[in-house]
Amino acid sequence: MRAERASRPRRPVVDLTDEQARRALPLKWGTVPKDVIPAWVAEMDYAVDPVVMEAVQRALADGVTGYPLEHDPALGEAYAGWAGRHFGWAPDPEAVRAVVDVTAGVRVAIEVLSGPGGVVFPTPGYNAQHGLAGITGRAEHLLELPASATTAEIDLDRLDALLAGGAQTLLLTQPHNPWGRAFTRTELEGIRDVVVRHGARVVSDEIHAPLVLPGAEHVSYLAIEGTHDHAVAVVAASKAFNIAGLRCAQLVVPDPQARKALDAEPMARNDSWSPLGVVAARAAYDHGDPWLASLVERLDEQRTLLQELLSTHLPEVRMRPLEATYLAWLDASALGHDDAAAVALERGRVMVSDGASYAPGSTGHVRLNIATSPERLTRIVERLALAWT
Amino acid sequence: MRAERASRPRRPVVDLTDEQARRALPLKWGTVPKDVIPAWVAEMDYAVDPVVMEAVQRALADGVTGYPLEHDPALGEAYAGWAGRHFGWAPDPEAVRAVVDVTAGVRVAIEVLSGPGGVVFPTPGYNAQHGLAGITGRAEHLLELPASATTAEIDLDRLDALLAGGAQTLLLTQPHNPWGRAFTRTELEGIRDVVVRHGARVVSDEIHAPLVLPGAEHVSYLAIEGTHDHAVAVVAASKAFNIAGLRCAQLVVPDPQARKALDAEPMARNDSWSPLGVVAARAAYDHGDPWLASLVERLDEQRTLLQELLSTHLPEVRMRPLEATYLAWLDASALGHDDAAAVALERGRVMVSDGASYAPGSTGHVRLNIATSPERLTRIVERLALAWT
Repeated sequence: MRAERASRPRRPVVDLTDEQARRALPLKWGTVPKDVIPAWVAEMDYAVDPVVMEAVQRALADGVTGYPLEHDPALGEAYAGWAGRHFGWAPDPEAVRAVVDVTAGVRVAIEVLSGPGGVVFPTPGYNAQHGLAGITGRAEHLLELPASATTAEIDLDRLDALLAGGAQTLLLTQPHNPWGRAFTRTELEGIRDVVVRHGARVVSDEIHAPLVLPGAEHVSYLAIEGTHDHAVAVVAASKAFNIAGLRCAQLVVPDPQARKALDAEPMARNDSWSPLGVVAARAAYDHGDPWLASLVERLDEQRTLLQELLSTHLPEVRMRPLEATYLAWLDASALGHDDAAAVALERGRVMVSDGASYAPGSTGHVRLNIATSPERLTRIVERLALAWT
Repeated sequence: MRAERASRPRRPVVDLTDEQARRALPLKWGTVPKDVIPAWVAEMDYAVDPVVMEAVQRALADGVTGYPLEHDPALGEAYAGWAGRHFGWAPDPEAVRAVVDVTAGVRVAIEVLSGPGGVVFPTPGYNAQHGLAGITGRAEHLLELPASATTAEIDLDRLDALLAGGAQTLLLTQPHNPWGRAFTRTELEGIRDVVVRHGARVVSDEIHAPLVLPGAEHVSYLAIEGTHDHAVAVVAASKAFNIAGLRCAQLVVPDPQARKALDAEPMARNDSWSPLGVVAARAAYDHGDPWLASLVERLDEQRTLLQELLSTHLPEVRMRPLEATYLAWLDASALGHDDAAAVALERGRVMVSDGASYAPGSTGHVRLNIATSPERLTRIVERLALAWT
């Protein structure tokens, strides 16, 4: 499918200059000193796809600053069309519900649909979702990936034990951030078998699905047989199109009973998405393919460049194959720093994400954001090498 | 203060045509048939203040579609400046925290700061906040305003009894929607005395504060002595400036210990506001006074027009004085309809809000939105008269 797409019309990825990035990305760029290269939070140093931007600008010119529709069928249609083209499986458009962002969608799915037992959270795991289980009043069970594992996989025996011990929900990040994994159909079937055995539920955060790189493919957990009665997916255009601030993600809820339960909740449970986010998501899903194709090609190049740079400058740093996302999980522990991210910032003037915010104690690890220009990525790794070695 | 403001520079309120309103307000206008005049959800049929709109358009042109700052001191400064000018009391800018919307702010304040006892919710109360207590895992205690009350006041004896019975939080809507009340300093002191006696907390939803009409004034609950240790206010520019969809409200948290508790929560508890909402709020607070002055004048005229129209066409309909907000609570029960809102829609082709969504059983009441043109308001009341009588 990627090969086919390559021959289709393209819109190029446009790199932001430092000055443009400082204006566009106030969190990523605006909070670091000017001599620091930011490579931390998951935002890309690329201009938004003009087709998406124009759609939002048109809506704003129309004065769309008020409440969104409570249920917008066009959003479900747009997502279903996109999913069918990109992932080979599409939900019923009626199964799609708007939420303000993916983490809010995970929260509402757990709160409304899950039993009171604990939530299994594979770690290293997305920093903003640490503590999420506690917010829903549930225990958080970390399912740890050993730093020594050569392949990042969900440990099914450990999952089995946690569910046997009373946990009732698996929060699956799929593709996984920061593992960089796109789980295979066989792996997902294995997860399903364990989950079904215990009558547990799955919330599958698939925000990185459009960012699966050549050589791997995205299989939605919902595309696996026998998952619809116990699972929802949380999806968004926001990560692939750099529009998280516009505030719209989607819950895919294939089970009609679960939809009914969600729809019966008081408004305060879920009514914070933005109409501009809906406009942006629809534009991305309906018209974003030519830009996404360029983006995936760029990220594939960045991935190759990173491997070359690491083998040249930082051969001691360990990195598993990056199959998806633009976030590389680097094990720099061989270099012996107590806090590799702090050293990178202080000595190297590079802001990477501290490994400990993804897995407690992983201070020898960092998460590196490669969604930038080749020139910046080169400088980043050169600076890391100077800082760490 | 209002008199002073009247002599200052003005920007006019611009009415939207039906066609413009259908594009700008997809919920209010887009979900009703074309022959129906929408006078329901709390959005105004006026163009957004151009100064606010231009600020958002500039941010979008800069590509601001990603994450907002975790803490933006300029937002606190802007709100404090605004509050000082308009309400005569300003918080420390450091006390201000962004949230995605007011109801989400109420939720986080209760979840993090309140004890597990029930929440007292004066009714008729904002429909989107019915059930909010339950979402936080707390009982909801309705503090009912008798339909026969000539003045809409919080019944302090009843509040006292509910807090004595175990409730631990008062959700105060202030100015009140749909009562249309701006509570006086004396009333607020009375509420404080009862709350303090029981060691309870107050969450004061002050989203309508800028919409206090001539003859009344807004006193923040936090401007009352002895409230900072047990109260937060939830404020926004969104209601007065018609920008709820841009998604930024603010929590005002005067107690440093409470701020510490909120700041220590996992990100997933509160990180969904939009950077465009921050831009819009700052523009409104810093530069919106000349537009707000025109708006308040217009709403004052609409209020007078409504009273005239009701006395001419619907003398049987009861309405308490409208001191604040653009939402009139109409008691049409003397006209004997089982569901006054449904009759208004079916026979009158006017969409008003069903009273029962504000207070269970109040089907003889409706909430009427007067933030439209004088021509539309005239047609609305004429149609209601035809439908109801």
